[in-house]
Amino acid sequence: MKFRVAGTLGYEVLKPTTFILNIHALRTPAQAVLEETFTVDPYYKIEEIAPQHGESRFIRLEVPEPCTVNIAYSAVIDTSFKQTPTANLIKVPIAEMDASVLPYLFPSRYCQSDKLFRFANNKFGYIDNAFERLLALTNWIHDNVEYLSGSTNSQTSAYDTVAELAGVCRDFAHLGIALCRALDIPARYFTGYAYQLNPPDFHACFEAYIGSEWIIFDATKLVPLNGLVKIATGRDAADAAIASIFGEVNFMGISASCELADDNFQPVFYEGQKIEGLTYL
Amino acid sequence: MKFRVAGTLGYEVLKPTTFILNIHALRTPAQAVLEETFTVDPYYKIEEIAPQHGESRFIRLEVPEPCTVNIAYSAVIDTSFKQTPTANLIKVPIAEMDASVLPYLFPSRYCQSDKLFRFANNKFGYIDNAFERLLALTNWIHDNVEYLSGSTNSQTSAYDTVAELAGVCRDFAHLGIALCRALDIPARYFTGYAYQLNPPDFHACFEAYIGSEWIIFDATKLVPLNGLVKIATGRDAADAAIASIFGEVNFMGISASCELADDNFQPVFYEGQKIEGLTYL
Amino acid sequence: MKFRVAGTLGYEVLKPTTFILNIHALRTPAQAVLEETFTVDPYYKIEEIAPQHGESRFIRLEVPEPCTVNIAYSAVIDTSFKQTPTANLIKVPIAEMDASVLPYLFPSRYCQSDKLFRFANNKFGYIDNAFERLLALTNWIHDNVEYLSGSTNSQTSAYDTVAELAGVCRDFAHLGIALCRALDIPARYFTGYAYQLNPPDFHACFEAYIGSEWIIFDATKLVPLNGLVKIATGRDAADAAIASIFGEVNFMGISASCELADDNFQPVFYEGQKIEGLTYL
Amino acid sequence: MKFRVAGTLGYEVLKPTTFILNIHALRTPAQAVLEETFTVDPYYKIEEIAPQHGESRFIRLEVPEPCTVNIAYSAVIDTSFKQTPTANLIKVPIAEMDASVLPYLFPSRYCQSDKLFRFANNKFGYIDNAFERLLALTNWIHDNVEYLSGSTNSQTSAYDTVAELAGVCRDFAHLGIALCRALDIPARYFTGYAYQLNPPDFHACFEAYIGSEWIIFDATKLVPLNGLVKIATGRDAADAAIASIFGEVNFMGISASCELADDNFQPVFYEGQKIEGLTYL
Repeated sequence: MKFRVAGTLGYEVLKPTTFILNIHALRTPAQAVLEETFTVDPYYKIEEIAPQHGESRFIRLEVPEPCTVNIAYSAVIDTSFKQTPTANLIKVPIAEMDASVLPYLFPSRYCQSDKLFRFANNKFGYIDNAFERLLALTNWIHDNVEYLSGSTNSQTSAYDTVAELAGVCRDFAHLGIALCRALDIPARYFTGYAYQLNPPDFHACFEAYIGSEWIIFDATKLVPLNGLVKIATGRDAADAAIASIFGEVNFMGISASCELADDNFQPVFYEGQKIEGLTYL
Repeated sequence: MKFRVAGTLGYEVLKPTTFILNIHALRTPAQAVLEETFTVDPYYKIEEIAPQHGESRFIRLEVPEPCTVNIAYSAVIDTSFKQTPTANLIKVPIAEMDASVLPYLFPSRYCQSDKLFRFANNKFGYIDNAFERLLALTNWIHDNVEYLSGSTNSQTSAYDTVAELAGVCRDFAHLGIALCRALDIPARYFTGYAYQLNPPDFHACFEAYIGSEWIIFDATKLVPLNGLVKIATGRDAADAAIASIFGEVNFMGISASCELADDNFQPVFYEGQKIEGLTYL
Repeated sequence: MKFRVAGTLGYEVLKPTTFILNIHALRTPAQAVLEETFTVDPYYKIEEIAPQHGESRFIRLEVPEPCTVNIAYSAVIDTSFKQTPTANLIKVPIAEMDASVLPYLFPSRYCQSDKLFRFANNKFGYIDNAFERLLALTNWIHDNVEYLSGSTNSQTSAYDTVAELAGVCRDFAHLGIALCRALDIPARYFTGYAYQLNPPDFHACFEAYIGSEWIIFDATKLVPLNGLVKIATGRDAADAAIASIFGEVNFMGISASCELADDNFQPVFYEGQKIEGLTYL
Repeated sequence: MKFRVAGTLGYEVLKPTTFILNIHALRTPAQAVLEETFTVDPYYKIEEIAPQHGESRFIRLEVPEPCTVNIAYSAVIDTSFKQTPTANLIKVPIAEMDASVLPYLFPSRYCQSDKLFRFANNKFGYIDNAFERLLALTNWIHDNVEYLSGSTNSQTSAYDTVAELAGVCRDFAHLGIALCRALDIPARYFTGYAYQLNPPDFHACFEAYIGSEWIIFDATKLVPLNGLVKIATGRDAADAAIASIFGEVNFMGISASCELADDNFQPVFYEGQKIEGLTYL
């Protein structure tokens, strides 16, 4: 499925500042970048760097002097995904997990799974099939956490959200991840462009490792699961921030959009009769 | 320098349990494992797995049935290290850091550097030379945080320690790491065996990336910096726990020791006239 | 109903220390102290002080020198209580509350009701009758929070318990109070002796102000509600600690007991056909 | 000294709402209310209630229907204060404190003194004279915490501020109070109108109980200590919020002002040669 995505960021730079930007669509076997432009106005040196096993395409930008800088990315992306029958999406024994998966079992800055062990197990531990368990978990988040712009900030974590029950897509994702890990299910943060997100913005959701696949889940239920364009995955938003800023700036603005550049989009949600888990490879 | 190290762990296993053990000395260009034995009594299948760029040697152990399991590791290790003059240990610009270093700039479970920005910058931001800054930072931790066994637990984080001012080696390390990252200095957790640690135990300290080297620091000042045998590095204790346990066990006991198997050990601390930063490659 | 209660505390005093002890049974219109002895061995000056509107009988004890001090209280108490039909136990409008009740609406050290507004309202806000709402709330705590000795400490608060779901009577009470206040229902901490508590100990539960009465609730469900002897009420355990210690001591031991000194005890729990709310005046 | 004070609050009331307003100047032996007007537009029933030993003059206002409500208070106040020589402002032994003072020793919602014991004692414990200790403590807060509008919210507590080192007057006060209590010095929150506050706003600072007097301290150092008009004291902002709202409203606006209605104002700060502690009775 082809999408035309775009993202912009604007900053008033007050002192020499290095940005690590994370708004490029990832290149993967299942996600082809057909066209891509990236501009920084005024122009300063940029460099693409790929930390952490190809999970993101960081752009490092140095702005050596005060100025107003406008960053713009646009691309045409061709995504594909794999679907796996629910019955196959069983919990992977720790003993069979690949070493690269293990880090996603451990607690991280915004996903303190170590503190949510009882919560996760009391609520969802009884459900046998891992996919069903994940559905119950995302349903619970959807039904109990209020989507409320401005209710949280960059320090809010899953431990807060489980008590305060309000947040934005990032908080929904962090709570989903923390609950998975508390259930010994590896989970990671997914940030991307999202088709039909309203109002348009960058989006965040998460992937859980079940049936030896990274299956996508989105507790916000705001967008079709097959309308995502992956920017990055990581342990949580600390790994996959849209922009990490080392210097001093005033934030001016941000925008993101994702439009269909193809025909025949059939939205996929995990609902209805025949559900299959969806993987972005 | 040669050391004979040993570690033991004992558990009463109540249900089928998978352990990820992290007590093997790392093999690195500068740390040779001359001899090594690892026993699990009774014997169950083990497997060595190496996640995260060779930063640890995890042993995965499956205990499929209730029993009392005793785990023992012993080894003779030959370590070497590099020393770098203080004057060279300057702060590395973000713009020049290798991609593999960047993750150590971001906040993690126990090192919420995002919340300690003002604290770190107010206290240590004025010091120009990065090594001097790190010395001031470790001195501050040493002088202000009370080493107090049992005062903290596995959920205690740097944010707690900066207010509560008590902890154990793990907490000293987490606070050091968090303060570094808040100063835009990459830092990572170091766990290992430590010569002359009294009482003997597993030890934790941290490495900061300055002058393009990972320089070791130990805010506890309990052991000579050249008496360490590296087990693992990671973002924090979440990555480098001695044992991660998936199942149900009662903890029975733990021990660690590190003895000199060589002559002429000259303890190195960062004190006196001519200080040089110490790196374990 | 008559009870024979006893409590002991032991400390090794290391430096001159002032204790504020809170183990005396309260004297109220509905709770008569028939006999009472209080000993401090060795003897030091004590003084009874009554802060906060007669909600407690603090004993101030000065120990001016290092020693081992043993404190013992025993008493025979005659308690009575009032029962109010459920139908009358409706929510009191803020507009009709007496000024003395208002402080129990506000958040306190261990009861951060301001952070649990959504949680309380989502879960229990739909229930009309205030007593039914309180029953649902205490049932929820009972069913979801694991009673686990040693799982918490003196810094644990309701905000922790709602996520970690383990604790002791104090934590059950704090969570109950916080949820009430988040629902605009005044609630206060109750500490006392408890008949049939097993193992014997000091107990904590809470009172909610509904139907213009302070109705007792105990989410632990460990003891009959009519088997309590009140020591104190307060906003939370900060107001009603068994002992507040200003100085330096080692804790040696604590005990509490409550035995029936009467016939015909008919245990009351909030269960069965005809439930009435129970008030200790 | 005479001041003309004024405060306004505006709300869009969405559902029937009860307000507890706390903007009236307190009447005390040392603070006379010479003139006073209070208007609610449109008019709804109000009632003055005095909880907690005359520490505040709460106004309870019921707005039974959706509307826009404007609240305005203005008054002419004559304040006086007492000054006590530093040498007399010694720490009061717990053993000599009046029962009414004891609650101000205990931790409260925003002042978790129990978690700051080491911090307070390490930093300020060595200073003998209590007033000097308080000066050091308020200087430390002033020098280390950045006054930054919008950096905190209504859930921010002293435990956050000691690590994050930014806040507004309320946060400065909470940290001061928490540190005092951690040093066994009773302390309470003070909210009022403040002469020469720029920009004009409601103000918060704190009182510490030393030398058997409630001495005023203001770690923001934004206003003269003799230019305050007391609205209320309490354990922390939970007791003394400008407005506690039970219902559903949108906040429209707030203002406060304090002008001199007298001659010869000589600003008092704790600085210079001859300092004396200032008490508002």
